[in-house]
Amino acid sequence: MGFEFVHLAEFAWFKMEPQEGRFDFNWLDRVVSLCTKYHLKVLLCTPSATTPTWMRVNYPETFVMDGHYIRAENGTRGLESMVNPKFRGYVQRIVAEMAKRYGQNSNVMGWQIDNEPGAVSDYSPSSQEAFRTWLKNKYKTIDALNTAWGAAFWSQWFNNFDQVIIPNTNLVGWWGNNPHALLDFKRYSADAQAEFLDLQAGTLRNYISKSQFVTTNYTAVCTGSDPNRTTKLDFAAYTAYPNGGSDNIGESGFRLGNSDVVLFASEYYKSVGGISGVLEIQPGPVNWGSYNPLLLPGTVRLWLYHSFAAGGKIACSYRFRQILYGAEQYHAGVIQTDGVTPSQGGKDYMQFMKEITELRKQFTPGAKMPAKLAARSTALLWNVENYWSIDRQKQTGQWNTWDYPVKFLKTARALGAPVDVIQETADLSKYKLLIVPAYEMADSALVKKWTDYVAKGGNLVVTCRTATKDRRGYFWEGETAMPISNLIGAHISQTDMLSSYGKGDILMNSNHYSWHSWADLLVPDNTTGVLATYNNQFYKGKAAVVKHRIGKGSVTYIGVDTDDSKLEKDLLRQIYKDAGATTEDYPPGVFVYWRNGFYTALNYSSENYAVNVPDNAKVLIGEKILKPSGVLVWTE
Amino acid sequence: MGFEFVHLAEFAWFKMEPQEGRFDFNWLDRVVSLCTKYHLKVLLCTPSATTPTWMRVNYPETFVMDGHYIRAENGTRGLESMVNPKFRGYVQRIVAEMAKRYGQNSNVMGWQIDNEPGAVSDYSPSSQEAFRTWLKNKYKTIDALNTAWGAAFWSQWFNNFDQVIIPNTNLVGWWGNNPHALLDFKRYSADAQAEFLDLQAGTLRNYISKSQFVTTNYTAVCTGSDPNRTTKLDFAAYTAYPNGGSDNIGESGFRLGNSDVVLFASEYYKSVGGISGVLEIQPGPVNWGSYNPLLLPGTVRLWLYHSFAAGGKIACSYRFRQILYGAEQYHAGVIQTDGVTPSQGGKDYMQFMKEITELRKQFTPGAKMPAKLAARSTALLWNVENYWSIDRQKQTGQWNTWDYPVKFLKTARALGAPVDVIQETADLSKYKLLIVPAYEMADSALVKKWTDYVAKGGNLVVTCRTATKDRRGYFWEGETAMPISNLIGAHISQTDMLSSYGKGDILMNSNHYSWHSWADLLVPDNTTGVLATYNNQFYKGKAAVVKHRIGKGSVTYIGVDTDDSKLEKDLLRQIYKDAGATTEDYPPGVFVYWRNGFYTALNYSSENYAVNVPDNAKVLIGEKILKPSGVLVWTE
Amino acid sequence: MGFEFVHLAEFAWFKMEPQEGRFDFNWLDRVVSLCTKYHLKVLLCTPSATTPTWMRVNYPETFVMDGHYIRAENGTRGLESMVNPKFRGYVQRIVAEMAKRYGQNSNVMGWQIDNEPGAVSDYSPSSQEAFRTWLKNKYKTIDALNTAWGAAFWSQWFNNFDQVIIPNTNLVGWWGNNPHALLDFKRYSADAQAEFLDLQAGTLRNYISKSQFVTTNYTAVCTGSDPNRTTKLDFAAYTAYPNGGSDNIGESGFRLGNSDVVLFASEYYKSVGGISGVLEIQPGPVNWGSYNPLLLPGTVRLWLYHSFAAGGKIACSYRFRQILYGAEQYHAGVIQTDGVTPSQGGKDYMQFMKEITELRKQFTPGAKMPAKLAARSTALLWNVENYWSIDRQKQTGQWNTWDYPVKFLKTARALGAPVDVIQETADLSKYKLLIVPAYEMADSALVKKWTDYVAKGGNLVVTCRTATKDRRGYFWEGETAMPISNLIGAHISQTDMLSSYGKGDILMNSNHYSWHSWADLLVPDNTTGVLATYNNQFYKGKAAVVKHRIGKGSVTYIGVDTDDSKLEKDLLRQIYKDAGATTEDYPPGVFVYWRNGFYTALNYSSENYAVNVPDNAKVLIGEKILKPSGVLVWTE
Repeated sequence: MGFEFVHLAEFAWFKMEPQEGRFDFNWLDRVVSLCTKYHLKVLLCTPSATTPTWMRVNYPETFVMDGHYIRAENGTRGLESMVNPKFRGYVQRIVAEMAKRYGQNSNVMGWQIDNEPGAVSDYSPSSQEAFRTWLKNKYKTIDALNTAWGAAFWSQWFNNFDQVIIPNTNLVGWWGNNPHALLDFKRYSADAQAEFLDLQAGTLRNYISKSQFVTTNYTAVCTGSDPNRTTKLDFAAYTAYPNGGSDNIGESGFRLGNSDVVLFASEYYKSVGGISGVLEIQPGPVNWGSYNPLLLPGTVRLWLYHSFAAGGKIACSYRFRQILYGAEQYHAGVIQTDGVTPSQGGKDYMQFMKEITELRKQFTPGAKMPAKLAARSTALLWNVENYWSIDRQKQTGQWNTWDYPVKFLKTARALGAPVDVIQETADLSKYKLLIVPAYEMADSALVKKWTDYVAKGGNLVVTCRTATKDRRGYFWEGETAMPISNLIGAHISQTDMLSSYGKGDILMNSNHYSWHSWADLLVPDNTTGVLATYNNQFYKGKAAVVKHRIGKGSVTYIGVDTDDSKLEKDLLRQIYKDAGATTEDYPPGVFVYWRNGFYTALNYSSENYAVNVPDNAKVLIGEKILKPSGVLVWTE
Repeated sequence: MGFEFVHLAEFAWFKMEPQEGRFDFNWLDRVVSLCTKYHLKVLLCTPSATTPTWMRVNYPETFVMDGHYIRAENGTRGLESMVNPKFRGYVQRIVAEMAKRYGQNSNVMGWQIDNEPGAVSDYSPSSQEAFRTWLKNKYKTIDALNTAWGAAFWSQWFNNFDQVIIPNTNLVGWWGNNPHALLDFKRYSADAQAEFLDLQAGTLRNYISKSQFVTTNYTAVCTGSDPNRTTKLDFAAYTAYPNGGSDNIGESGFRLGNSDVVLFASEYYKSVGGISGVLEIQPGPVNWGSYNPLLLPGTVRLWLYHSFAAGGKIACSYRFRQILYGAEQYHAGVIQTDGVTPSQGGKDYMQFMKEITELRKQFTPGAKMPAKLAARSTALLWNVENYWSIDRQKQTGQWNTWDYPVKFLKTARALGAPVDVIQETADLSKYKLLIVPAYEMADSALVKKWTDYVAKGGNLVVTCRTATKDRRGYFWEGETAMPISNLIGAHISQTDMLSSYGKGDILMNSNHYSWHSWADLLVPDNTTGVLATYNNQFYKGKAAVVKHRIGKGSVTYIGVDTDDSKLEKDLLRQIYKDAGATTEDYPPGVFVYWRNGFYTALNYSSENYAVNVPDNAKVLIGEKILKPSGVLVWTE
Repeated sequence: MGFEFVHLAEFAWFKMEPQEGRFDFNWLDRVVSLCTKYHLKVLLCTPSATTPTWMRVNYPETFVMDGHYIRAENGTRGLESMVNPKFRGYVQRIVAEMAKRYGQNSNVMGWQIDNEPGAVSDYSPSSQEAFRTWLKNKYKTIDALNTAWGAAFWSQWFNNFDQVIIPNTNLVGWWGNNPHALLDFKRYSADAQAEFLDLQAGTLRNYISKSQFVTTNYTAVCTGSDPNRTTKLDFAAYTAYPNGGSDNIGESGFRLGNSDVVLFASEYYKSVGGISGVLEIQPGPVNWGSYNPLLLPGTVRLWLYHSFAAGGKIACSYRFRQILYGAEQYHAGVIQTDGVTPSQGGKDYMQFMKEITELRKQFTPGAKMPAKLAARSTALLWNVENYWSIDRQKQTGQWNTWDYPVKFLKTARALGAPVDVIQETADLSKYKLLIVPAYEMADSALVKKWTDYVAKGGNLVVTCRTATKDRRGYFWEGETAMPISNLIGAHISQTDMLSSYGKGDILMNSNHYSWHSWADLLVPDNTTGVLATYNNQFYKGKAAVVKHRIGKGSVTYIGVDTDDSKLEKDLLRQIYKDAGATTEDYPPGVFVYWRNGFYTALNYSSENYAVNVPDNAKVLIGEKILKPSGVLVWTE
């Protein structure tokens, strides 16, 4: 079929350690040697996401407890208490055994640790203890914790660390928990997850060859783990399940899947180790969608090209053969249940492998990003801590915490901009535009970094909810978003929100835009320009978007979240234009990427799209009229 | 009021055994002797569905635990741990005491065991132990269990039976449990229920006269118990609550109730002991409906006639007098709260009793089914295990696991066919048509039985999802539904499903039909005819329904589940026609039955219906223009 | 800002008792002395609604358990087991300490006990024990309890009180619990709450000056507690949060809030101690609404005037300054996060305080209610026990247990009537009209009181569901609502209900009205008039509303609950007219009150309203064209 490697042993702990302390690798030796014989590299997985039955029977304390203090059981995935010392010991032992056996095998190219690490909330005694230790390390004194958590509120004050327990949202309404404690519980959980991954990575590195890489496979939309907290992995990879029964774009959208999945994940996970890749792409209908339609033929290939175009270094299917039994028996494979016939997804893979082999021949190292693209090079600042903080206190059901920043990624991409998702530590100098969407928690150092970026000529877009809190989740003792008022040249006097039926009207350049989720009422400073105003409600005429110049650059503050992102798109277009860059206007679901000299156009929409390819371009794959699920690759 | 028997002692354990081991039957003696005096037969019930408070206090372990391992309490119904040895002992003792006292009483006509036995899921230690014992008996070796459960998946492998626990869907998402283990848990639960009923039946039979029958009262829609698993009951009866606040057919439908209830139950429970009957029919509004409207006058009589027409041997109301207190105080009785005035439902009963007494006089034994009806005699194959298996893995929210087979029962009835619901062991030779709807689990012996039936001239209708799995719930190592591909003369290449907004189009004989739930794409063999094709989506032109001839008979495979059953109805009509039978065209809610020489027409619709009665027919009850809730009985 | 008092120490237990038995009031001394210095009175709160962490650590048994027997934790509000003796001891000690220190401080004007006491359901061992004790006190013998609970049903009979446990609706479906036991659990819970408040009031009164008042702050809509069960409080106050993200009236309704909140609470809590007031009014958006919009400027002032107009003696905001941290950080204050700038709500307060100071100058003691208003003086009979009973067994999802009686309050107010919400013990003689809406549980003494009221010239409106049960929740052994059949001069033959799609039609004086929730079919006595009849359904022509004359008065029975209350409004208007009173016709959301010589008009609607003020009236506040959120105060 053209595959170059296989992905093995992910959930096979019981096969490698059928009884406590008794190891059996004969079966795996045989598989690895068959792979070697047939020139298939091997990506080995550590098996820590599913524990054998003997672990549950002998050491029930190695499982998480949920918020009702009910202990999990084995038989499914990812419900182990990662902070339990006994569990960590057993994990280290099996990982060491695997590493000793395969760490020097030149056919083993690398390791995946665990599976879709999700930083699951764990209320077990092991986790209570670990949380207290984490807090002691962070705060040193109990009064520091009391202050950081605002523990004076509702008599929550602690006399010592031993009194602390995990804040449990299951025992009171969502409104009744301490948000700072919850934020720290999220941080602790993400740290515990990262520590667990690093523990395994460290164990592996004691034994494995330097030529073997170490990674893990986060879910594409990952709101529990923070991939940036690990220190011992070579890079972060992801899994991609774009089609689980959602409508998406146009009449074929339910077959083509959600285009946000690879779009976001491919950029986000690059922010960890510089490169990324996809370790699972669904090869057809799955077992867990609200409904599970057939994919339009070519859809799997579309996703694979999307991952490639966005810089992916590795791609893998899940799974090879549709399994005859088990919870995932309805999950498609690249091979059907008979064990020999490729599925439609399998055919897509085969075509992709054939084509990518051809593309490799066309590859010229050292290609530089074309000037037209570099001129609109854009960064989107992301910190999962803001997701944790906002999503706990959305203040309106209209607010979609994950979609909100992603809409800026989509909008910039629709204008033809290359967009990196970056972390706070990133070098900003190479970006023409920096988007900071709903970046709730900030501090003065960060605001200074943004200000410096602008002063040196950068174009900054800051949006509502940004810098409204400090890193503890406190409001400022001052006006709303106090640290950025000088930066944006305006003051946020009040914030409004409407019901799902509400219709807010905005006016900008004689165009009307609608909103109902979030609206900051802005009072601009004298030197600040007003780009858009509210056009109804009792505060008609108040500013909604303002523009402020600092040094050589500009800051645009967008105080409103519009229903269809049109205002945001018109603003970004103008900013690119003002910065001397041209823009494109790709319809929803059409993406054009440039990577290492290759242009790739992708079509997740339900309509044909005529790609604007220069006459002198060399089309390598596909046709200029891009059909739904179509891919076009060319060089210029 | 015309009643001929009463139904006693159902929930009266505490009255018969007010303290542990102290029995008091004086009150019941008095009731039974009053009944005898007034020529009312007695149907006695065993009280095992509600336990006295002393049982909860002294033996809390006799109650079930839910999936959160919380112990049930007494005070409601049916939450006892039927496999708990202590509970079984107490049940045997009270049943023996009752049997000794009334088993030879000639006024006691029979016994109802328990109440609405539902095979409730029980996660208590008693049930964990019983489940392990059940598995040992079934599998003998742990490796056999491991194989049957596909325990290699997600490291679920067991080293011995002591390690097995009940698969608990409450601790993980619905997608995360082993379907084979869940299927066995359903089987175990149904076996435990059957065993519990048989235990009581056996105890009764130690003492009672052969003239007393033994039965139980399953709910009409019963998806937990499997009535065919008992061996010691004379027959299976049911309870009927057609009106609990649903819309049903037309503007009066919410008063007339759901016509599927008696329709299905009356046929289904006959499949156990050859006869059936209804032990509870609601006599008016109940206490538990989403709303509880008045019944259209005559509705209770309609339901009684429905049960009679479908072959019912016994009918009983629940309850006699509307109770002044308790959880069911709003549940109507045939007598109102004052204790003397018949309710509207009570008047319906009185009229029915008067009329049935008249009909008895018209009864001539030995009537043979008219040839016209016999020519379209139909069987619908049912196995509750398929419900268990499919409902766990529906693959689309559009699929309604219970309604799907029932729609074929309704459709055949609307064409005028007498329809038996049958089990796999039934003799097929007397049926012109055999319908096998979504019969997921099959084996070669069963497929051979179907093939033989067809070869000898039978007309078989097989539908989507049939034979897609073996009895363990495994897919076949081969193509989808491998065992029936020769039978249906086609191959299922893929399966599609649409969202609730989706509109699939089918073409058959220039007629269009719509679907959105399930669609098998069929590849017919050379000798197989295509009856209907998909008319949109990317696979337009693929076969949706095929017809294959084997020997003297035919097999029609219906790969699609249409929105309004019109395609299915048009197909069945043609099959009857091809088999030389005539058909009727009754509108939804109108049913015509023939039983022992009597024709009965029933109207659950909101419109008048003119029944086509031959001129020479003798109308015994009602008028030819059948009003909503109306009944017409005649002989020809 | 004009404030005259502050509200202190509500949740500050840990600050006053930072470690078990170690008290620290220095900080509070300082606050109180600052208040004294700046002429601010102090309302002190007991801190029992939030316990310090040391209580959770040392005495976990002082917390409630939920219906899954999971123990609550500290850190939120109101989850203490109020019946736990240890908890009561600690509460008494802290309250005594506070009372000793501030009970004679002349700047402390009064005490608020606890916070929003809600009679939370508690399934802890402490509560199980207390419930048994409560039952023993009520029933004396176990047989009395068995009878009252109808324990014969489903074998619930108890041999002794030790066998009784709290009825747990979490372990069975809602339909499966004993309604009489649940009713007693509600009564017990309300008694426990009242006892807990009285315990604190008693402790306070051991130390405090007679000039200090004692109250508590119930939620405005309070369905758990029964404020009439306390005996030691001076009066009952409430908290008012009219705006939590609901649509309300017209396009600005989502900003103006729900007008029912102050409307109902201000009358209801007066029924306890003769006076009432509001101890918390939201000063802007809150943290817990489904969305949290800006209030229309003036809205807080509107609510304050509403409370004033309805007789309020005290009003307080919650909270002063928007807090920077904690679960309520998004909850507006009268001062913004900077600690100095008044919010819009703060400005509203300031304006109100300025205006009320002016109004005080206009106050003339001894004003008598104008005759026009006295002529339509109305009482609405309320007993929260009916809420408990009906809401458990609504019989239809269309029935809204709280809204139903409130609609009569609104309707009478819209006709210009002053309406008192009263308890059974109230003197009825001063009311021209007494409304008894869905008063489910009654006895002969109460019915006699109603009858006497009518005989002496009163006009009684009785509605559906009234007197259908005795005080135990039993139906009568007789016809529906037996005790009132002579009173209303009619018999309720049956009760109907429709689905949410249903449309019932009523005819009265050639006008049509629609219903779908509840309909009693009435059979009037010979001397009883029929005012309205059902105009569709199978019982077309049956009476829906009847009028019966007794002595000098009249009884109108309204058997139907109409969709928009128009029938009810037309009926009330006619009754006032027949009683010689004039009526007004205020649109929804417009209220006009008379209090101590002042007329106040309030506008919660989204339209301007021209208030009909006599030419000779003296307008004190506002304008005659009342804008949304507008207030008009005048004297005549």
